[in-house]
Amino acid sequence: MILRSSIPSPFGRKVKMAAKYLGLYDGLTIETADTNNPDDSLRNQNPLGKIPVLILDDGQKIFDSRVICEYLDTLANGKTLHPATGDARWQALTLQSLGDGIVDAAILQVYEKRMRPDDKRHQDWVDYQADKITRSLTMLAANPPSLTGDLTIGHFAVACALGYLDFRFDGAWRAGYPALVTWLDDFRARVPAFDTTVPQV
Amino acid sequence: MILRSSIPSPFGRKVKMAAKYLGLYDGLTIETADTNNPDDSLRNQNPLGKIPVLILDDGQKIFDSRVICEYLDTLANGKTLHPATGDARWQALTLQSLGDGIVDAAILQVYEKRMRPDDKRHQDWVDYQADKITRSLTMLAANPPSLTGDLTIGHFAVACALGYLDFRFDGAWRAGYPALVTWLDDFRARVPAFDTTVPQV
Repeated sequence: MILRSSIPSPFGRKVKMAAKYLGLYDGLTIETADTNNPDDSLRNQNPLGKIPVLILDDGQKIFDSRVICEYLDTLANGKTLHPATGDARWQALTLQSLGDGIVDAAILQVYEKRMRPDDKRHQDWVDYQADKITRSLTMLAANPPSLTGDLTIGHFAVACALGYLDFRFDGAWRAGYPALVTWLDDFRARVPAFDTTVPQV
Repeated sequence: MILRSSIPSPFGRKVKMAAKYLGLYDGLTIETADTNNPDDSLRNQNPLGKIPVLILDDGQKIFDSRVICEYLDTLANGKTLHPATGDARWQALTLQSLGDGIVDAAILQVYEKRMRPDDKRHQDWVDYQADKITRSLTMLAANPPSLTGDLTIGHFAVACALGYLDFRFDGAWRAGYPALVTWLDDFRARVPAFDTTVPQV
Protein backbone atom coordinates (compact mmCIF):
# COMPACT_ATOMS: atom_id res chain seq x y z
CA MET A 1 0.00 0.00 0.00
CA ILE A 2 1.16 3.50 -0.81
CA LEU A 3 0.32 6.45 1.41
CA ARG A 4 0.50 9.81 -0.32
CA SER A 5 1.13 12.35 2.41
CA SER A 6 3.64 14.94 3.59
CA ILE A 7 5.61 15.37 6.77
CA PRO A 8 3.68 18.40 8.07
CA SER A 9 0.18 17.09 7.19
CA PRO A 10 -1.88 16.69 10.38
CA PHE A 11 -4.33 14.33 8.73
CA GLY A 12 -1.42 12.35 7.32
CA ARG A 13 -0.03 12.19 10.83
CA LYS A 14 -3.32 10.81 12.13
CA VAL A 15 -3.11 8.00 9.58
CA LYS A 16 0.54 7.31 10.37
CA MET A 17 -0.13 7.22 14.10
CA ALA A 18 -3.08 4.88 13.59
CA ALA A 19 -1.02 2.64 11.30
CA LYS A 20 1.79 2.42 13.85
CA TYR A 21 -0.62 1.76 16.70
CA LEU A 22 -2.34 -0.96 14.71
CA GLY A 23 0.96 -2.58 13.73
CA LEU A 24 0.50 -1.81 10.05
CA TYR A 25 3.03 0.93 9.44
CA ASP A 26 5.67 -1.34 7.94
CA GLY A 27 3.18 -2.28 5.24
CA LEU A 28 2.91 1.34 4.10
CA THR A 29 5.15 2.88 1.48
CA ILE A 30 5.11 6.59 2.19
CA GLU A 31 5.32 8.70 -0.96
CA THR A 32 5.55 12.42 -0.37
CA ALA A 33 2.94 14.49 -2.19
CA ASP A 34 3.11 18.17 -2.98
CA THR A 35 -0.40 19.57 -2.86
CA ASN A 36 0.74 22.79 -4.52
CA ASN A 37 2.35 21.12 -7.53
CA PRO A 38 -0.14 20.71 -10.40
CA ASP A 39 2.12 18.07 -11.94
CA ASP A 40 2.15 15.85 -8.86
CA SER A 41 0.21 12.67 -9.59
CA LEU A 42 -1.76 13.38 -6.43
CA ARG A 43 -4.42 15.26 -8.38
CA ASN A 44 -5.08 12.17 -10.48
CA GLN A 45 -5.33 10.06 -7.34
CA ASN A 46 -7.62 12.49 -5.55
CA PRO A 47 -8.98 15.26 -7.76
CA LEU A 48 -9.44 17.43 -4.69
CA GLY A 49 -5.64 17.51 -4.48
CA LYS A 50 -5.77 16.71 -0.77
CA ILE A 51 -3.68 14.38 1.32
CA PRO A 52 -3.58 11.75 2.68
CA VAL A 53 -4.59 9.24 0.01
CA LEU A 54 -4.11 5.50 0.40
CA ILE A 55 -3.48 3.52 -2.79
CA LEU A 56 -4.13 -0.19 -2.51
CA ASP A 57 -2.13 -2.78 -4.38
CA ASP A 58 -4.95 -3.14 -6.90
CA GLY A 59 -4.85 0.60 -7.59
CA GLN A 60 -7.96 1.53 -5.61
CA LYS A 61 -7.71 4.95 -3.98
CA ILE A 62 -9.08 5.55 -0.50
CA PHE A 63 -9.48 8.99 1.05
CA ASP A 64 -9.83 11.03 3.22
CA SER A 65 -8.03 10.30 6.52
CA ARG A 66 -11.19 9.10 8.23
CA VAL A 67 -11.87 6.50 5.60
CA ILE A 68 -8.23 5.42 5.51
CA CYS A 69 -8.12 4.97 9.29
CA GLU A 70 -11.27 2.89 9.29
CA TYR A 71 -9.90 0.79 6.42
CA LEU A 72 -6.66 0.19 8.32
CA ASP A 73 -8.71 -1.05 11.25
CA THR A 74 -10.02 -3.88 9.11
CA LEU A 75 -6.46 -5.03 8.39
CA ALA A 76 -5.41 -5.12 12.05
CA ASN A 77 -6.24 -8.46 13.55
CA GLY A 78 -8.17 -7.68 16.67
CA LYS A 79 -7.00 -4.17 17.42
CA THR A 80 -9.46 -1.45 16.52
CA LEU A 81 -9.78 2.30 16.90
CA HIS A 82 -13.42 2.27 15.78
CA PRO A 83 -15.92 0.77 18.20
CA ALA A 84 -18.29 -1.29 16.07
CA THR A 85 -21.63 -0.23 17.49
CA GLY A 86 -23.52 1.71 20.10
CA ASP A 87 -22.81 4.91 21.98
CA ALA A 88 -19.08 4.14 22.00
CA ARG A 89 -19.01 4.38 18.21
CA TRP A 90 -20.87 7.69 17.96
CA GLN A 91 -18.84 9.22 20.77
CA ALA A 92 -15.59 8.15 19.11
CA LEU A 93 -16.61 9.40 15.67
CA THR A 94 -17.98 12.68 17.03
CA LEU A 95 -14.78 13.21 18.97
CA GLN A 96 -12.89 12.62 15.72
CA SER A 97 -15.09 15.25 14.03
CA LEU A 98 -14.16 17.68 16.77
CA GLY A 99 -10.45 16.97 16.50
CA ASP A 100 -10.54 17.17 12.71
CA GLY A 101 -12.55 20.39 12.93
CA ILE A 102 -9.89 21.97 15.13
CA VAL A 103 -7.32 21.05 12.49
CA ASP A 104 -9.50 22.48 9.71
CA ALA A 105 -9.80 25.78 11.59
CA ALA A 106 -6.05 25.82 12.21
CA ILE A 107 -5.22 25.08 8.56
CA LEU A 108 -7.39 27.95 7.40
CA GLN A 109 -5.35 30.26 9.63
CA VAL A 110 -2.11 28.87 8.20
CA TYR A 111 -3.43 29.25 4.64
CA GLU A 112 -4.40 32.84 5.35
CA LYS A 113 -0.69 33.59 5.47
CA ARG A 114 0.56 31.04 2.95
CA MET A 115 -1.97 31.52 0.19
CA ARG A 116 -2.45 35.31 0.23
CA PRO A 117 -0.40 38.45 0.01
CA ASP A 118 -0.32 40.59 3.13
CA ASP A 119 -2.95 43.03 1.91
CA LYS A 120 -5.52 40.30 1.26
CA ARG A 121 -5.46 38.89 4.79
CA HIS A 122 -8.53 39.47 6.90
CA GLN A 123 -8.15 39.39 10.64
CA ASP A 124 -11.86 38.84 11.27
CA TRP A 125 -11.66 35.57 9.34
CA VAL A 126 -8.58 34.46 11.26
CA ASP A 127 -10.32 35.31 14.53
CA TYR A 128 -13.44 33.43 13.44
CA GLN A 129 -11.36 30.29 12.96
CA ALA A 130 -9.34 30.84 16.14
CA ASP A 131 -12.57 31.14 18.13
CA LYS A 132 -13.65 27.70 16.94
CA ILE A 133 -10.44 26.30 18.39
CA THR A 134 -10.76 28.21 21.67
CA ARG A 135 -14.30 26.98 22.20
CA SER A 136 -13.31 23.42 21.35
CA LEU A 137 -10.29 23.35 23.64
CA THR A 138 -12.35 24.87 26.44
CA MET A 139 -14.94 22.13 26.08
CA LEU A 140 -12.31 19.39 25.89
CA ALA A 141 -10.37 20.73 28.87
CA ALA A 142 -13.51 20.78 31.00
CA ASN A 143 -14.01 17.07 30.39
CA PRO A 144 -10.98 15.44 28.75
CA PRO A 145 -11.75 12.24 26.83
CA SER A 146 -11.11 9.31 29.13
CA LEU A 147 -7.85 7.46 28.50
CA THR A 148 -8.52 4.65 30.95
CA GLY A 149 -10.31 2.37 28.51
CA ASP A 150 -9.75 1.48 24.87
CA LEU A 151 -8.34 4.20 22.70
CA THR A 152 -10.38 5.30 19.70
CA ILE A 153 -9.83 7.31 16.56
CA GLY A 154 -11.36 10.20 18.51
CA HIS A 155 -8.39 10.27 20.88
CA PHE A 156 -6.03 10.14 17.92
CA ALA A 157 -7.77 13.04 16.18
CA VAL A 158 -7.65 15.23 19.30
CA ALA A 159 -3.98 14.41 19.87
CA CYS A 160 -3.21 15.26 16.23
CA ALA A 161 -5.05 18.55 16.62
CA LEU A 162 -3.01 19.49 19.68
CA GLY A 163 0.15 18.38 17.89
CA TYR A 164 -0.73 20.59 14.95
CA LEU A 165 -1.26 23.55 17.25
CA ASP A 166 2.17 22.80 18.72
CA PHE A 167 3.69 22.67 15.25
CA ARG A 168 2.07 25.71 13.65
CA PHE A 169 1.36 27.97 16.64
CA ASP A 170 4.32 27.25 18.89
CA GLY A 171 2.21 25.44 21.45
CA ALA A 172 0.58 28.68 22.59
CA TRP A 173 -2.49 26.64 23.60
CA ARG A 174 -0.55 24.97 26.41
CA ALA A 175 -0.61 27.96 28.74
CA GLY A 176 -4.40 28.09 28.78
CA TYR A 177 -5.25 24.41 28.99
CA PRO A 178 -3.11 22.57 31.54
CA ALA A 179 -5.68 19.77 31.73
CA LEU A 180 -5.12 19.10 28.03
CA VAL A 181 -1.35 19.21 28.44
CA THR A 182 -1.71 16.45 31.03
CA TRP A 183 -4.10 14.63 28.75
CA LEU A 184 -1.68 14.76 25.83
CA ASP A 185 1.16 13.52 28.03
CA ASP A 186 -0.99 10.59 29.10
CA PHE A 187 -1.90 9.89 25.49
CA ARG A 188 1.76 10.02 24.45
CA ALA A 189 2.59 7.47 27.13
CA ARG A 190 0.12 5.05 25.56
CA VAL A 191 0.86 5.94 21.95
CA PRO A 192 4.59 6.35 21.33
CA ALA A 193 3.73 6.94 17.66
CA PHE A 194 2.73 10.45 18.65
CA ASP A 195 6.33 11.36 19.39
CA THR A 196 7.77 9.46 16.43
CA THR A 197 5.54 11.34 14.00
CA VAL A 198 6.26 14.87 15.22
CA PRO A 199 6.87 16.91 12.06
CA GLN A 200 10.55 17.79 11.65
CA VAL A 201 10.80 20.34 8.86
CA MET B 1 -34.20 13.72 17.95
CA ILE B 2 -33.38 17.30 17.13
CA LEU B 3 -31.45 18.26 14.01
CA ARG B 4 -29.75 21.62 14.20
CA SER B 5 -29.34 22.80 10.63
CA SER B 6 -30.35 25.53 8.22
CA ILE B 7 -32.20 25.55 4.93
CA PRO B 8 -29.17 26.38 2.75
CA SER B 9 -26.71 24.00 4.46
CA PRO B 10 -25.49 21.39 1.96
CA PHE B 11 -24.37 19.02 4.70
CA GLY B 12 -27.71 19.51 6.44
CA ARG B 13 -29.37 18.66 3.16
CA LYS B 14 -27.38 15.44 2.92
CA VAL B 15 -28.66 14.43 6.36
CA LYS B 16 -32.25 15.39 5.50
CA MET B 17 -32.13 13.46 2.24
CA ALA B 18 -30.70 10.43 3.99
CA ALA B 19 -33.32 10.66 6.74
CA LYS B 20 -36.13 10.84 4.21
CA TYR B 21 -34.72 7.98 2.15
CA LEU B 22 -34.36 5.85 5.27
CA GLY B 23 -37.90 6.64 6.44
CA LEU B 24 -36.69 8.51 9.52
CA TYR B 25 -37.43 12.12 8.67
CA ASP B 26 -40.67 12.28 10.65
CA GLY B 27 -38.67 11.42 13.76
CA LEU B 28 -36.53 14.53 13.36
CA THR B 29 -37.39 17.88 14.85
CA ILE B 30 -35.60 20.43 12.70
CA GLU B 31 -34.37 23.42 14.68
CA THR B 32 -32.79 26.16 12.61
CA ALA B 33 -29.32 27.18 13.72
CA ASP B 34 -27.54 30.43 12.92
CA THR B 35 -23.84 29.70 12.63
CA ASN B 36 -23.04 33.43 12.69
CA ASN B 37 -24.90 34.17 15.91
CA PRO B 38 -22.65 33.77 18.97
CA ASP B 39 -25.73 33.49 21.18
CA ASP B 40 -27.20 30.56 19.30
CA SER B 41 -27.02 27.45 21.49
CA LEU B 42 -25.32 25.73 18.54
CA ARG B 43 -21.89 26.65 19.85
CA ASN B 44 -22.63 24.80 23.08
CA GLN B 45 -23.80 21.79 21.12
CA ASN B 46 -20.83 21.78 18.77
CA PRO B 47 -18.02 24.12 19.80
CA LEU B 48 -16.91 24.32 16.17
CA GLY B 49 -20.15 26.19 15.52
CA LYS B 50 -20.88 24.01 12.50
CA ILE B 51 -24.07 22.39 11.30
CA PRO B 52 -25.60 19.87 11.13
CA VAL B 53 -25.69 18.55 14.70
CA LEU B 54 -28.01 15.75 15.81
CA ILE B 55 -29.16 15.83 19.43
CA LEU B 56 -30.47 12.54 20.76
CA ASP B 57 -33.27 12.31 23.29
CA ASP B 58 -30.73 11.64 26.05
CA GLY B 59 -28.88 14.84 25.14
CA GLN B 60 -25.95 13.22 23.32
CA LYS B 61 -24.69 15.32 20.43
CA ILE B 62 -23.59 13.69 17.18
CA PHE B 63 -21.71 15.50 14.40
CA ASP B 64 -20.64 15.97 11.64
CA SER B 65 -22.94 15.00 8.76
CA ARG B 66 -21.01 11.81 8.06
CA VAL B 67 -21.42 10.55 11.57
CA ILE B 68 -25.07 11.56 11.67
CA CYS B 69 -25.82 9.74 8.42
CA GLU B 70 -24.16 6.59 9.62
CA TYR B 71 -26.03 6.82 12.92
CA LEU B 72 -29.34 7.19 11.08
CA ASP B 73 -28.54 4.02 9.16
CA THR B 74 -28.57 2.08 12.40
CA LEU B 75 -32.11 3.25 13.12
CA ALA B 76 -33.48 2.22 9.73
CA ASN B 77 -34.60 -1.35 9.81
CA GLY B 78 -32.90 -3.00 6.89
CA LYS B 79 -32.25 -0.01 4.64
CA THR B 80 -28.69 1.22 4.64
CA LEU B 81 -26.60 3.77 2.79
CA HIS B 82 -23.35 2.40 4.24
CA PRO B 83 -22.21 -0.98 2.93
CA ALA B 84 -20.96 -2.87 5.98
CA THR B 85 -17.72 -4.30 4.63
CA GLY B 86 -15.43 -4.79 1.70
CA ASP B 87 -14.67 -2.75 -1.39
CA ALA B 88 -18.24 -1.49 -1.51
CA ARG B 89 -17.75 0.27 1.82
CA TRP B 90 -14.49 1.99 0.91
CA GLN B 91 -15.80 3.01 -2.48
CA ALA B 92 -18.93 4.49 -0.91
CA LEU B 93 -17.04 6.33 1.81
CA THR B 94 -14.37 7.63 -0.59
CA LEU B 95 -17.10 8.84 -2.94
CA GLN B 96 -18.65 10.62 0.03
CA SER B 97 -15.27 12.25 0.75
CA LEU B 98 -15.17 13.45 -2.84
CA GLY B 99 -18.68 14.87 -2.72
CA ASP B 100 -18.08 16.51 0.65
CA GLY B 101 -14.78 17.90 -0.63
CA ILE B 102 -16.53 19.54 -3.58
CA VAL B 103 -18.89 21.18 -1.10
CA ASP B 104 -15.99 22.33 1.09
CA ALA B 105 -14.32 23.95 -1.91
CA ALA B 106 -17.59 25.59 -2.92
CA ILE B 107 -18.26 26.90 0.59
CA LEU B 108 -14.82 28.51 0.72
CA GLN B 109 -15.69 30.39 -2.46
CA VAL B 110 -19.00 31.52 -0.97
CA TYR B 111 -17.27 32.59 2.24
CA GLU B 112 -14.73 34.58 0.25
CA LYS B 113 -17.59 36.93 -0.58
CA ARG B 114 -19.63 36.62 2.58
CA MET B 115 -16.89 36.87 5.19
CA ARG B 116 -14.61 39.52 3.67
CA PRO B 117 -14.80 43.04 2.39
CA ASP B 118 -14.15 43.44 -1.34
CA ASP B 119 -10.55 44.50 -0.94
CA LYS B 120 -9.62 41.40 1.07
CA ARG B 121 -10.75 38.92 -1.56
CA HIS B 122 -8.07 36.99 -3.36
CA GLN B 123 -8.87 35.58 -6.79
CA ASP B 124 -6.02 33.05 -6.70
CA TRP B 125 -7.59 31.44 -3.65
CA VAL B 126 -11.01 31.34 -5.29
CA ASP B 127 -9.47 29.80 -8.40
CA TYR B 128 -7.59 27.25 -6.30
CA GLN B 129 -10.87 26.08 -4.82
CA ALA B 130 -12.71 26.21 -8.16
CA ASP B 131 -10.01 24.02 -9.73
CA LYS B 132 -10.66 21.34 -7.11
CA ILE B 133 -14.28 21.26 -8.23
CA THR B 134 -13.42 21.24 -11.94
CA ARG B 135 -11.06 18.31 -11.53
CA SER B 136 -13.57 16.43 -9.41
CA LEU B 137 -16.48 16.93 -11.80
CA THR B 138 -14.27 15.94 -14.73
CA MET B 139 -13.35 12.71 -12.99
CA LEU B 140 -16.95 11.99 -11.99
CA ALA B 141 -18.29 12.76 -15.47
CA ALA B 142 -15.80 10.37 -17.06
CA ASN B 143 -17.16 7.54 -14.95
CA PRO B 144 -20.37 8.47 -13.14
CA PRO B 145 -21.09 6.41 -10.01
CA SER B 146 -23.37 3.54 -10.99
CA LEU B 147 -27.01 3.99 -10.05
CA THR B 148 -28.11 0.51 -11.03
CA GLY B 149 -27.40 -1.15 -7.69
CA ASP B 150 -27.92 -0.08 -4.11
CA LEU B 151 -27.55 3.61 -3.39
CA THR B 152 -24.90 4.65 -0.89
CA ILE B 153 -24.02 7.75 1.08
CA GLY B 154 -21.49 8.40 -1.69
CA HIS B 155 -24.28 8.97 -4.21
CA PHE B 156 -26.04 11.24 -1.74
CA ALA B 157 -22.91 13.31 -1.15
CA VAL B 158 -22.28 13.79 -4.87
CA ALA B 159 -25.91 14.74 -5.47
CA CYS B 160 -25.74 17.26 -2.62
CA ALA B 161 -22.56 18.71 -4.08
CA LEU B 162 -24.20 19.20 -7.47
CA GLY B 163 -27.26 20.64 -5.76
CA TYR B 164 -25.08 23.10 -3.87
CA LEU B 165 -23.41 24.18 -7.12
CA ASP B 166 -26.91 24.71 -8.54
CA PHE B 167 -27.87 26.76 -5.50
CA ARG B 168 -24.80 28.95 -5.11
CA PHE B 169 -23.40 29.11 -8.65
CA ASP B 170 -26.57 29.12 -10.74
CA GLY B 171 -25.93 25.65 -12.07
CA ALA B 172 -23.06 26.85 -14.25
CA TRP B 173 -21.55 23.36 -14.00
CA ARG B 174 -24.36 21.90 -16.09
CA ALA B 175 -23.09 23.22 -19.42
CA GLY B 176 -19.77 21.42 -19.07
CA TYR B 177 -20.88 18.08 -17.66
CA PRO B 178 -23.95 16.71 -19.48
CA ALA B 179 -23.14 13.21 -18.21
CA LEU B 180 -23.53 14.48 -14.65
CA VAL B 181 -26.76 16.27 -15.49
CA THR B 182 -28.13 12.93 -16.69
CA TRP B 183 -26.71 11.24 -13.60
CA LEU B 184 -28.38 13.73 -11.28
CA ASP B 185 -31.70 13.31 -13.11
CA ASP B 186 -31.44 9.55 -12.63
CA PHE B 187 -30.58 10.03 -8.97
CA ARG B 188 -33.55 12.36 -8.49
CA ALA B 189 -35.83 9.74 -9.98
CA ARG B 190 -34.72 7.28 -7.30
CA VAL B 191 -34.51 9.80 -4.45
CA PRO B 192 -37.45 12.20 -4.50
CA ALA B 193 -36.00 13.72 -1.31
CA PHE B 194 -33.50 15.53 -3.52
CA ASP B 195 -36.24 17.72 -4.97
CA THR B 196 -38.09 18.17 -1.68
CA THR B 197 -34.95 19.48 0.02
CA VAL B 198 -33.97 22.07 -2.61
CA PRO B 199 -33.13 25.22 -0.64
CA GLN B 200 -35.77 27.89 -1.04
CA VAL B 201 -34.41 31.09 0.41
